Amino acid sequence: MELNKKSLEMHKKWNGKLEVVPKMKLETAEDLSIAYTPGVAAPCIEIKNHPNDSFIYTARKHTIAVISDGSAVLGLGNIGAEAAMPVMEGKCALFKALGGIDAIPLCINTQDTDKLVEIIASLEASFGGINLEDIAAPRCFEIEKRLQDKMKIPVFHDDQHGTAIVVCAALVNALRLVKKDEPAIVINGAGSAGCAIASLILKLKLGDVILVDRQGILHDGMELTTGQRSIIQLCNHKHKSGDIRAALKDADVFIGVSTGHIISKDMIASMHEKAIVFAMANPIPEIEPEDAKEANAYIIGTGRSDHPNQINNLLAFPGIFKGALDAGATRINDSMKIAAVYALAHLISEEELRTDYIIASPFDKRVVEKVSEAVKQAAIDSHVIRQ
Amino acid sequence: MELNKKSLEMHKKWNGKLEVVPKMKLETAEDLSIAYTPGVAAPCIEIKNHPNDSFIYTARKHTIAVISDGSAVLGLGNIGAEAAMPVMEGKCALFKALGGIDAIPLCINTQDTDKLVEIIASLEASFGGINLEDIAAPRCFEIEKRLQDKMKIPVFHDDQHGTAIVVCAALVNALRLVKKDEPAIVINGAGSAGCAIASLILKLKLGDVILVDRQGILHDGMELTTGQRSIIQLCNHKHKSGDIRAALKDADVFIGVSTGHIISKDMIASMHEKAIVFAMANPIPEIEPEDAKEANAYIIGTGRSDHPNQINNLLAFPGIFKGALDAGATRINDSMKIAAVYALAHLISEEELRTDYIIASPFDKRVVEKVSEAVKQAAIDSHVIRQ
Repeated sequence: MELNKKSLEMHKKWNGKLEVVPKMKLETAEDLSIAYTPGVAAPCIEIKNHPNDSFIYTARKHTIAVISDGSAVLGLGNIGAEAAMPVMEGKCALFKALGGIDAIPLCINTQDTDKLVEIIASLEASFGGINLEDIAAPRCFEIEKRLQDKMKIPVFHDDQHGTAIVVCAALVNALRLVKKDEPAIVINGAGSAGCAIASLILKLKLGDVILVDRQGILHDGMELTTGQRSIIQLCNHKHKSGDIRAALKDADVFIGVSTGHIISKDMIASMHEKAIVFAMANPIPEIEPEDAKEANAYIIGTGRSDHPNQINNLLAFPGIFKGALDAGATRINDSMKIAAVYALAHLISEEELRTDYIIASPFDKRVVEKVSEAVKQAAIDSHVIRQ
Repeated sequence: MELNKKSLEMHKKWNGKLEVVPKMKLETAEDLSIAYTPGVAAPCIEIKNHPNDSFIYTARKHTIAVISDGSAVLGLGNIGAEAAMPVMEGKCALFKALGGIDAIPLCINTQDTDKLVEIIASLEASFGGINLEDIAAPRCFEIEKRLQDKMKIPVFHDDQHGTAIVVCAALVNALRLVKKDEPAIVINGAGSAGCAIASLILKLKLGDVILVDRQGILHDGMELTTGQRSIIQLCNHKHKSGDIRAALKDADVFIGVSTGHIISKDMIASMHEKAIVFAMANPIPEIEPEDAKEANAYIIGTGRSDHPNQINNLLAFPGIFKGALDAGATRINDSMKIAAVYALAHLISEEELRTDYIIASPFDKRVVEKVSEAVKQAAIDSHVIRQ
């Protein structure tokens, strides 16, 4: 309550969290003749003749749009375009503060997939990348894919891939500590984040995945989205069935991207020894870290800043976009995501690694540097660079 | 040539003329918990419950979009979305430098009227106003009108109304000096700027207008746009016909929004005594000021900064939008435009007024202050305020 009151007060005082400022002084006729007419015609003509020069003469090289339709905002659900703006502004503020990227918040007043694709694609000339944000599943999958096919700049749905990258980095490090072969990894929540995490874990071959949602362990006989169906073909090697309780019995890893307080201590106690528990529902985790600890969990992470091992998108999106933009990448492909996972994981050395330090702090300056370097190199190596 | 080289060099160095910066520090977990999750949920919920609160809790109150389809950029014509960006960035930089308004440049990759209307309207939640820029006539008229009907924020095509406001302010002052009743005012160029100037002159009842384009003096028998046709019903009381030469004979005022060097000295010499000549084609005026002077023009204005009486949109758009945003206006109506004309004209007192000082300098700090105050008051008085 206190936080909400303070946040309202500060948001009122700020009256918007961003400012758009010129990089040059504009005080004399000569200043204007260069930055505006008549001098501005020269870069216009250069770009007309060489369209890629827009990355030299305009801000595209370091400017992205953070775009939402307001359909799945935080835990608040479908609150619409106006109400989503404070989140998008906040995200843009973080892009600048952490990654030096200029980011512009855009909330779009439609939730029609075809229209969203057309509208976002039409804005390509103004940006070097598109961060999709808080768009509901399953529409988010189609929107991202169609945009990436249409556009020659990276399109990245952070709720999917940003989350997946950070979870996988934490998981890589947790597994370095517990040293298990083919761990059984239960993911609770099969929406955009859950599916992206499952998919990236499979690509990284970190273990066997069991995907669970409110209906229980996902299986072929259920009504599933195309994305869920293709993932579960590669999952659940031991053919477990039942609810989350059944899934967790003898599992090695719990990854929660669902809702607060739905996992009990006895469920955690039923897991294998040295259990890894990432309870990331926000602001209330699936199980309180103290309870998970009492139930003998060995490594515990949450999405919260007031506990160790904060598994937060903040660790990924600034560096991912910085790397992609620096490289002149036309997309963010699997190689780049995987490079980000290992760059983030390997920030912590073998000697530093502890059960309460498996992931770096979002305020560790090395995070953006290392992630962006790795992503840039992966973009170059995998030939997704603008010609 | 030298200017173009310098402009390219500076544009390369800037690599974009704008930066998007957070208004708060984001260095600690507590900073984040207020500006981002979980605190940001509080303003989201307030806005969901009271949509107009987005003007309190987000940047909409002082943020506009500067939007073009790249179809009529400067004198360069239809150069497309990428190539139009340097102009839009420059305009946004000026909005901030002169009016304190945060402006975001967006170039849209379509020139289809229906699509442009749909795309721009879909962005309403992110902005407090829309400045349309460099969109070709006659599409610009329909696009502006349809958007203003659809949107609850001001939509303003600056090439039309900004130009008209500044020209009319200069004309009001020029006529204060020459004291003519019902002057004959020739406007050469019947595109978006020419039609808007004609229309505003008629509303202000400054004189009789004769609208001319490449075909000569516009008349009913020609192929005309709807806008041109409705204007000429109110024009040319003496039924002049023929070319620009015929139009100028015995005219009192020449307003050029056409192309360079198309008016000769003898045409100016054929005008009434104390002729007013606004030769605003850019960068080359319809007649060089020196030649107009030799031909006995009494008051001369151009669009250029290296001559006295620079008649430039810069004098209007920052103050117009500031006034409209400050008032919480839902549109920019005729009362507001007229208020801007007189605020701008009356910055120069009877004592200060001279043939080479009929319009204030764009760097005169009072311009934005006085124009915005007048526009704000006119918005309030004419009841176009957000409820």
